[in-house]
Amino acid sequence: MARLVVVTPNPAIDVTYQVERQEIGTTIRVDRVRRRAGGKGVNVARVLHDLGRTATAVLPLGGEAGRWLAADLLAQGVPVRAVPVTAETRTTVTVVDGVAHPTLFAEPGAPPTHAEWDAVLGATADECEPGGTLVVSGSLPAGTDPRRMADLVRAGRRRGSRTVVDTSGDALLTAAEAGADLVKPNRAEALAATCATDLAGAMADLHRRGAALVVVALGADGLVATAADGDRWTQSAVPGVTGNPTGAGDAATAGLVAALDAGAPLADALRQAALAGAAAVHRDTAGEVDPADLAELADRLPAGTAPLLSTADRQGSR
Amino acid sequence: MARLVVVTPNPAIDVTYQVERQEIGTTIRVDRVRRRAGGKGVNVARVLHDLGRTATAVLPLGGEAGRWLAADLLAQGVPVRAVPVTAETRTTVTVVDGVAHPTLFAEPGAPPTHAEWDAVLGATADECEPGGTLVVSGSLPAGTDPRRMADLVRAGRRRGSRTVVDTSGDALLTAAEAGADLVKPNRAEALAATCATDLAGAMADLHRRGAALVVVALGADGLVATAADGDRWTQSAVPGVTGNPTGAGDAATAGLVAALDAGAPLADALRQAALAGAAAVHRDTAGEVDPADLAELADRLPAGTAPLLSTADRQGSR
Repeated sequence: MARLVVVTPNPAIDVTYQVERQEIGTTIRVDRVRRRAGGKGVNVARVLHDLGRTATAVLPLGGEAGRWLAADLLAQGVPVRAVPVTAETRTTVTVVDGVAHPTLFAEPGAPPTHAEWDAVLGATADECEPGGTLVVSGSLPAGTDPRRMADLVRAGRRRGSRTVVDTSGDALLTAAEAGADLVKPNRAEALAATCATDLAGAMADLHRRGAALVVVALGADGLVATAADGDRWTQSAVPGVTGNPTGAGDAATAGLVAALDAGAPLADALRQAALAGAAAVHRDTAGEVDPADLAELADRLPAGTAPLLSTADRQGSR
Repeated sequence: MARLVVVTPNPAIDVTYQVERQEIGTTIRVDRVRRRAGGKGVNVARVLHDLGRTATAVLPLGGEAGRWLAADLLAQGVPVRAVPVTAETRTTVTVVDGVAHPTLFAEPGAPPTHAEWDAVLGATADECEPGGTLVVSGSLPAGTDPRRMADLVRAGRRRGSRTVVDTSGDALLTAAEAGADLVKPNRAEALAATCATDLAGAMADLHRRGAALVVVALGADGLVATAADGDRWTQSAVPGVTGNPTGAGDAATAGLVAALDAGAPLADALRQAALAGAAAVHRDTAGEVDPADLAELADRLPAGTAPLLSTADRQGSR
């Protein structure tokens, strides 16, 4: 097990407002306020911590909000490498009641300057080590050159770290083109970024661009993974798990990364991803996992659902 | 002109989210974020500053949000006497689009501890001076003993300052009972606190409890004021002013306080209140006034609409 580094290019303070009833055009008393460090990479780092692994969170942080976010993450035991930026760190507000779907207000976040991006890149390279893993998770701030994602991947590769990227849009494409070891979009992101008409086509496109492995989480349908050489893996989800799916994809990334870092073959790592994702759904709070849930869930996930299908098998099944 | 002190017992960071369209149960991209120091007393202090007067803002402030609020107010030129408290300063989020009414999410705010309240009281007494004015504006944090408002009034009186209170509920009653020189609820607050069936009855009740002057802003209907001895004043609003009424009451309080502090008779002070309130409605941003607007508005506010009616006149009109 080597050093794990998780970069969140566009972190946020995640605020949840529990209200009696959502209603437009009125003054609504907030009954309960929950505030915590957020952003996809932050969730990944936190779940890695829940899984007993230490990952350093590299974060561009600005203003009092940035200081708050760093303090919150440190209080939870996650090491933070903060890169100071001028713009105040953004906030997202999720309004929940017992009736309607949650409403999420997403602040766009101001893009770091060129010099600030270079500092993020430098800090990332500095934290990475040979044999370690670099995870980059989440969107780039609005208005950021998507090639910044490629720079991050190259920084990790140059330091000899495995690179895992969960992002969308052009940033996903540049990550693949920079030779990411593993990209992990969701189905919609894979299709949208590649303009492919089906998932197999989208995954093939990401391989053609340069990604070694592509893993796509399909929610209740489990996970599917492909390698550049045509190998394909599938992993079913734990059956009958209900709860809060927000952040389950980030938990799955954490499970995958922890297993790969421990030397597990991809099939086993996908199973750990499925378990971590299911454990996250179990929890009220997005992007957290109770390790006690994992063992219980493992009993419910049938073995043998992660066959390694060779290229020949895959083509034979067409 | 003597020292002005404005206490905000429950300050907040006021956040405004400009969105394309409010819709419950979706993810809404925030197009523009505006963040500033807020709370009724903060608005009063800021408008006093706009009117060329310096008022020290006494504020219980906690956490990174508290630091941000103090820095924002200082950057606008308002002196801050911050009283450190443990609980993080609250936030209110107002969501606006071009279509529906704004939706306001109000965090309740955690009450300061006894020791923290004593520190607020001490700071307030320390800032007040003989011949000065103490303004207390806004609600107490949820769960706070309403007698804390009376303590503030007594602290100001003991130091020889004029005391002006704009609050609601039991805190309004205790302010009157502590002998506030002027209480300024709105109509709904006056009726709700006193359980009176009409405004005259509510104002009389506040006098009976101990308030020397009662001023009630009636929006487009102007202002009405009564004295404990039965004198009564009315002031019409500037006609034809449209815009954003949020914070107009706080601007009116600032106009009233600035005029009284400058030695103006109450009739003139009510006219200044009406002008400042109208100037605030003119501005996009709640609780700000452009002094250039005041002169222009003054031309539109007919003179002689603030007659001092003696008790005899008032009773004769019944």
